[in-house]
Amino acid sequence: MRQSQLFPKTKKEAPKDAESINHKLLVRAGFMDQLMAGSWTLLPMGFKVVQKINQIIREEINAVGGQEMLMPLLHPKTIWNETGRWDKADEIMYKLKDSRDKEYALSFTHEEIVMDLLRKTISSYKDLPVSIYHFSTKFRNELRAKSGILRGREFMMKDLYSAHANEVDLMEYYEKVKVAYSKIFTRLGFNFKIAKASGGVFTDKFTHEFQVLSDVGEDTIYWKEGDEEAVNEEVMEGDKAEYKSAKSIEVGNIFPLGTFYSERMRAYFTDRDGGKKPIWFGSYGIGPTRVMGTWVEVSHDDKGIIWSKQIAPYDVHLVELKSDSGEGKAEKIYDKLKQMGFDVLWDDRDVSAGEKFGDIDLIGIPVRLVVSDKTGDKIEHKERTSDKSELLSFEEVARRLQE
Amino acid sequence: MRQSQLFPKTKKEAPKDAESINHKLLVRAGFMDQLMAGSWTLLPMGFKVVQKINQIIREEINAVGGQEMLMPLLHPKTIWNETGRWDKADEIMYKLKDSRDKEYALSFTHEEIVMDLLRKTISSYKDLPVSIYHFSTKFRNELRAKSGILRGREFMMKDLYSAHANEVDLMEYYEKVKVAYSKIFTRLGFNFKIAKASGGVFTDKFTHEFQVLSDVGEDTIYWKEGDEEAVNEEVMEGDKAEYKSAKSIEVGNIFPLGTFYSERMRAYFTDRDGGKKPIWFGSYGIGPTRVMGTWVEVSHDDKGIIWSKQIAPYDVHLVELKSDSGEGKAEKIYDKLKQMGFDVLWDDRDVSAGEKFGDIDLIGIPVRLVVSDKTGDKIEHKERTSDKSELLSFEEVARRLQE
Repeated sequence: MRQSQLFPKTKKEAPKDAESINHKLLVRAGFMDQLMAGSWTLLPMGFKVVQKINQIIREEINAVGGQEMLMPLLHPKTIWNETGRWDKADEIMYKLKDSRDKEYALSFTHEEIVMDLLRKTISSYKDLPVSIYHFSTKFRNELRAKSGILRGREFMMKDLYSAHANEVDLMEYYEKVKVAYSKIFTRLGFNFKIAKASGGVFTDKFTHEFQVLSDVGEDTIYWKEGDEEAVNEEVMEGDKAEYKSAKSIEVGNIFPLGTFYSERMRAYFTDRDGGKKPIWFGSYGIGPTRVMGTWVEVSHDDKGIIWSKQIAPYDVHLVELKSDSGEGKAEKIYDKLKQMGFDVLWDDRDVSAGEKFGDIDLIGIPVRLVVSDKTGDKIEHKERTSDKSELLSFEEVARRLQE
Repeated sequence: MRQSQLFPKTKKEAPKDAESINHKLLVRAGFMDQLMAGSWTLLPMGFKVVQKINQIIREEINAVGGQEMLMPLLHPKTIWNETGRWDKADEIMYKLKDSRDKEYALSFTHEEIVMDLLRKTISSYKDLPVSIYHFSTKFRNELRAKSGILRGREFMMKDLYSAHANEVDLMEYYEKVKVAYSKIFTRLGFNFKIAKASGGVFTDKFTHEFQVLSDVGEDTIYWKEGDEEAVNEEVMEGDKAEYKSAKSIEVGNIFPLGTFYSERMRAYFTDRDGGKKPIWFGSYGIGPTRVMGTWVEVSHDDKGIIWSKQIAPYDVHLVELKSDSGEGKAEKIYDKLKQMGFDVLWDDRDVSAGEKFGDIDLIGIPVRLVVSDKTGDKIEHKERTSDKSELLSFEEVARRLQE
């Protein structure tokens, strides 16, 4: 992509109302724009980052048998009434009436809607297990929406649902998803902990949260030295003084919901023995837009964002410093790298070197390549995480990018 | 994918309330499920078809410089009020209030929201042109929603928006998008016409609709023998008797909106001459879910759906007829085809041959492969569009799939 054509251009200043780092940097660098409090447009570079996050999630969820689909966002009151959540989750649900006075809720999650689908399609133990997921929009009427894209009134969620013939099968799958989630957050490069927690409006059972350690987190989790799993305050046992604590940001959660939903919604199947039994149910969420914001919170410096290779909007940021003899070098490198399959942002704008270098650090692509009169037939290669630059041949640059 | 694990299984009967072919066949074959009138879950196979449609659209829109992004679905009343469409489009908009009595509309389109973004980001002619698009959910309060997935209250839309410094640049781009749309519908395999039409709640100018000829269409378009472009009734000129007509389904539309939106929303830029000018604006829509439904309307027989290679959920439907000696042949073919990059649905279920063949025709994957005792070391190859089957070697099967 030629940067002269990239929409939109970067901003010199962060928005005045921005309090959080992710809000300031993602808006200034042109990754997102605020429509209203808690509501964000993913601009082209932000959309690319979220697509890369989604692809990592998709690969690991497919690997545990998840089948991707897409469910509606406008839900009838009748279905939400069956579990009592129309009233119980009233505070966070957006509700509306149509012109015929029929009542609806906007999706804040999809358990009831998935259960409605399951009771229509599952009749026998032979139809189980089922593992289905989608990436879709969630709406939550958050009174406070000041953490940039970390806490939105409208946001993207990957939600996976699994249905089983018995508790053993559910819990085996639950552990598989826990492992898949660990792989996802490891691939994304986070320093995270798994915390045992209570289930809120979802379930009375214990659940697990995936928490990224960060000073700006709204949560606090606790763990004992040597323990692999952490806990949140509600499920802490024994002497609080024995625990270490941390501020953290929740990026994923998994819920072994049991038969709460299926019993209330009468989702029964015929088991091997001929008996009618309720479906065992689990749900598993990750917020990809929150993941993007969390990454920026934990990976930036005073100049801008520092993306990892895995989720960077481009592989390379290429710039040519204009001179009499150097013109046209960048275009050749751009074409060659594109042919090799690299995704290159080429700053072809007619602006000062200072502005170009400022934008490069602000946007935070992992590798910066500079050509100018001074570089001769070499290319100046610098990583966003390093202060050191090196003069390399094209072949050596290509080799390092392939690493 | 092993069919024993595919969610959900096919249904023996179409839903009782289904009137249209796409409703009957897509539900029976397990591509979609109705949550409520006009509201559909895309089940895994339906999701795959729509993703393939989206990919064709994405490639052609990227080729004319479109940049993909993602915009919010919940919109503030204040912005919709600026153009008067909060009232003008009242009938089709879903509206709601939050707990603080702030009013919102659900996205039925995004012109105002895009214009709000443009006025925040475009200041100079140097920032133009801009071409941005997304695949996102649209909500329309349709009183009548009986045409299956052709007319939904909630549906997927690819909407592209372009912004320009002057009318000439807008109209040049408009013609480029018209060509891109023709490429898209040609790649999708439709028999379509481009019809000149009026703009409804979008614009007072002429617009163009992409109409697929079909007996079940809700529209009627007219054309003269030899004319490339058709017209709709509102813009027909001269003697009606000179025109041929057709029932048709609208699958795309393009709107040269001019400066209506930018003037009302005060989206001005500084032109080359230093003057403040309103942004010239266009919008361009395609409904991928409607495209899927339209395909089924125009491509089916009394046994089921007939997918094209371009948008089929799988490349191949493989089945083994059980016998003493034949067991295990299918698995080897399945593994080999997968390794070669083909997407195979393998019917590994323990059901009768009749049920397997019935499902194969119902689901409508382009190529059916059968192995049994009778086929020896060959594979029986049959296309969904043909009654004739042939015994072929694996290599010949692979060669035909690669064609």
